[in-house]
Amino acid sequence: MNRLEPTDPAALPPIKVALLGCGVVGSQVARLITQQSEDLTNRVGQRIELVGIAVRSLERDFGGLDPELFTTDADALVSRGDLDVVVEVVGGIEPVRSLVLKAIEHGASVVTANKALLAQDGETLFSAAERAGVDLYYEAAVAGAIPIVRPLRESLVGDEITTVMGIVNGTTNYILDQMTTTGADFADALAQAQELGYAEADPTADIEGFDAAAKAAIMATLAFHTRVRGADVYREGITQVSAADIAAARKAGCVVKLLAVLRLDDAGRVSVRVHPALVPDSHPLAGIHGAYNAIFVESREAGRLMFMGPGAGGSPTASAVMGDLVTVARNRVRGVAGPGESVYAEREIMPMGEVETRYLVRVEVTDEPGVLAACATVFSNHNVSVQTVDQTTAENTDEQVAVLALMTHLARESDLQAVVAELGTRPFTRGPVAVIRVEGK
Amino acid sequence: MNRLEPTDPAALPPIKVALLGCGVVGSQVARLITQQSEDLTNRVGQRIELVGIAVRSLERDFGGLDPELFTTDADALVSRGDLDVVVEVVGGIEPVRSLVLKAIEHGASVVTANKALLAQDGETLFSAAERAGVDLYYEAAVAGAIPIVRPLRESLVGDEITTVMGIVNGTTNYILDQMTTTGADFADALAQAQELGYAEADPTADIEGFDAAAKAAIMATLAFHTRVRGADVYREGITQVSAADIAAARKAGCVVKLLAVLRLDDAGRVSVRVHPALVPDSHPLAGIHGAYNAIFVESREAGRLMFMGPGAGGSPTASAVMGDLVTVARNRVRGVAGPGESVYAEREIMPMGEVETRYLVRVEVTDEPGVLAACATVFSNHNVSVQTVDQTTAENTDEQVAVLALMTHLARESDLQAVVAELGTRPFTRGPVAVIRVEGK
Ligand SMILES: NC(=O)c1ccc[n+]([C@@H]2O[C@H](COP(=O)([O-])OP(=O)(O)OC[C@H]3O[C@@H](n4cnc5c(N)ncnc54)[C@H](OP(=O)(O)O)[C@@H]3O)[C@@H](O)[C@H]2O)c1
Ligand SMILES: NC(=O)c1ccc[n+]([C@@H]2O[C@H](COP(=O)([O-])OP(=O)(O)OC[C@H]3O[C@@H](n4cnc5c(N)ncnc54)[C@H](OP(=O)(O)O)[C@@H]3O)[C@@H](O)[C@H]2O)c1
Repeated sequence: MNRLEPTDPAALPPIKVALLGCGVVGSQVARLITQQSEDLTNRVGQRIELVGIAVRSLERDFGGLDPELFTTDADALVSRGDLDVVVEVVGGIEPVRSLVLKAIEHGASVVTANKALLAQDGETLFSAAERAGVDLYYEAAVAGAIPIVRPLRESLVGDEITTVMGIVNGTTNYILDQMTTTGADFADALAQAQELGYAEADPTADIEGFDAAAKAAIMATLAFHTRVRGADVYREGITQVSAADIAAARKAGCVVKLLAVLRLDDAGRVSVRVHPALVPDSHPLAGIHGAYNAIFVESREAGRLMFMGPGAGGSPTASAVMGDLVTVARNRVRGVAGPGESVYAEREIMPMGEVETRYLVRVEVTDEPGVLAACATVFSNHNVSVQTVDQTTAENTDEQVAVLALMTHLARESDLQAVVAELGTRPFTRGPVAVIRVEGK
Repeated sequence: MNRLEPTDPAALPPIKVALLGCGVVGSQVARLITQQSEDLTNRVGQRIELVGIAVRSLERDFGGLDPELFTTDADALVSRGDLDVVVEVVGGIEPVRSLVLKAIEHGASVVTANKALLAQDGETLFSAAERAGVDLYYEAAVAGAIPIVRPLRESLVGDEITTVMGIVNGTTNYILDQMTTTGADFADALAQAQELGYAEADPTADIEGFDAAAKAAIMATLAFHTRVRGADVYREGITQVSAADIAAARKAGCVVKLLAVLRLDDAGRVSVRVHPALVPDSHPLAGIHGAYNAIFVESREAGRLMFMGPGAGGSPTASAVMGDLVTVARNRVRGVAGPGESVYAEREIMPMGEVETRYLVRVEVTDEPGVLAACATVFSNHNVSVQTVDQTTAENTDEQVAVLALMTHLARESDLQAVVAELGTRPFTRGPVAVIRVEGK
């Protein structure tokens, strides 16, 4: 057959797709497969046919979709044996993990948005896919509509990525934004976010940083070609961020963001962490508001790249799922699978104590001569070099108290923790020592 | 063979790569292939071997590379018959076009950074590659290190892209930036850019917008799944941008940028244009300085995405080339080719006269009662609605003259041109009418 004489793609057998989950994301995926049918056929080279949708309950609004498509028997759906692609937008670990493995065993490629599952047990899934010769794609699992998986996995694969730093959770970014603009404290900002639907009824995964840590693990595995699991990620959420922290940040010309920070050091070790951090107003990440996400990538050859866009939401996430679906379907049409994981380096994951960053340390001290010097000595005792000091008199106190805000140069986390411990033992210290890390220049 | 028992990739036959050109980009590609050899082997699954480098002259600094690799006989190199990949970083149309076609005929996949060639004759090259079952990748051809080809080609392929708007030429961005910060006029800013190596001795391709137009054509073909050639792009360079234009922009809270603007309208027609435009200070593109590039993409489902990074330079461009090289080599290892072009829609390319945008119109008029009203009437005669008017008295003139700066709402280009023509015939008009388009909100 002359390859330039195109056959009518609509006449060829279809690419059969099953959808697991039809919630916020799944319902949009189903809509797009149905609505864009003709364009998809042209882009893929064969028709995409949605053959079944697994959900928990059939008592539902079918949203214009054929009710016949729906089933509560996900197991039977993935075991049909004639599926080309299974799109998993249920979420969580089980039963999804077993369903995905079963789909792969039955020869289907998989597209998923499930960061929790990939960060916990990506290894099992990727090696099952590799063994079966099928694809496992997951662009939607990190930062919603922002293409970040492909850039890390393909565009930068001939380069050496040294830093990835990003805002990858919209809920926490929205809450911190609210705290910054209205001066609200964490609890009020969270309640408001829940009311407006930006935060879920159980917000733990977002506010405790589990969601961001899962995304950080996925990105680190891609960027550094080494296995990083969610549990390997140092993680602090935003529940401890106070209105006072936000005010101190403003005073230092910074905003507070929940950042995922991934670094490769010169010795080839990686550090992967998620925590609130001060970001200077002049840094592009400081300008990312509300539910938007943004990711900075720095590599030896390409330099500094940045990607931004909607980090969640039904339609944006469905856009990313659809991009994967078309890519995987195109592979099916040509009878091939895309490249698998590239995890060959066995890199050491640095303990948090060895990580270096900058810090803003706030401490209430008795307002007496010599206290500043004594305080500075505590820092130098532990090799932490102070860049700037801001001293103010505290309001509403009985005794004469000053608040010192000390910004450090780069310092080791363990050294900084030693400073905090020693400050706590000093007689001039009047309250708990507040520490926030500082990232970005 | 059990697919989970990996063979030593270094023991397998190598992927043979030939390099055409060893200049700014090529020398960095050669360095990376050599320096990163072990990582590349791990990422690709087989060793990458650089088997030859074609240049114009052998009287050169070999920069640490084996002189034996070099040849001036590019034709013989691409005709060896045993090549897996040819990396083309020479530039221009001939002899490169013939060399690339010959490489494809001999079964090699091609990676190129050549926007001029792709925008002029992509069709021939892509169909040759399709026929031969080889890959043709070109991430480096648009916006240097910024991954934009893959996002348009894969990540967003299940969505409908409606707008792409970007700063895709670093030289002109640098010149306009200089004009903005120093108040210099175009000629001086160009001379300085040439001195610093930001502009070439013959700067035509950059300052006349040909380079940006080629990139716009390549992006439009990807985004809208329809063939758009460089010659289809409406194009104005920056040579006519005056210090007065820059000052008027500042006054309107805007900066002047050379933009590539691609749109799909509701009727499915596309417009593709490159011209200087005012961008409001609040728009993210306004903050892109120097030789940086940035691209906004808007789609129906994903919403607004933005990508930024170094748009040119040896190392960043080489990073993009290397990403393609690894991807293409991985395909070779698995005996497959990636998906070809997706150009199935035959969309009408709108004539510039039908394009709608906003405009800032500046005109010197006699400073008499009734002139503002008469001027406004000219706009309404042609259905152009004025949003704001700024009137100032001109300095250094003999007669009483006022300068009107009128910002319009969205208007058709042909209507706006009719306004300009009619203003030119009016007795109250005292000089040429200056028009700049306004983009971004
Ligand atoms: N929402 C976002 O903005 C977003 C962004 C990025 C990634 N993601 C990821 O996308 C996935 C889905 O998120 P979502 O927001 O769409 O969730 P969702 O709205 O809660 O929808 C979950 C869907 O899965 C179905 N489901 C639950 N358990 C099931 C089971 N055992 N068998 C079959 N179906 C089951 C539910 O069925 P019923 O309809 O019958 O309840 C529902 O249709 C998650 O992995 C999430 O992390 C979401
Ligand atoms: N420079 C950038 O920042 C950048 C960014 C994006 C894309 N690109 C694209 O990358 C390509 C290369 O750009 P460049 O800046 O590297 O150009 P360059 O520095 O001028 O290098 C061109 C190379 O091609 C060789 N060459 C010229 N004619 C040849 C011929 N007929 N046969 C064999 N070799 C020939 C030259 O050989 P000699 O060394 O012997 O002169 C030189 O090594 C162009 O398509 C350009 O548009 C460049």
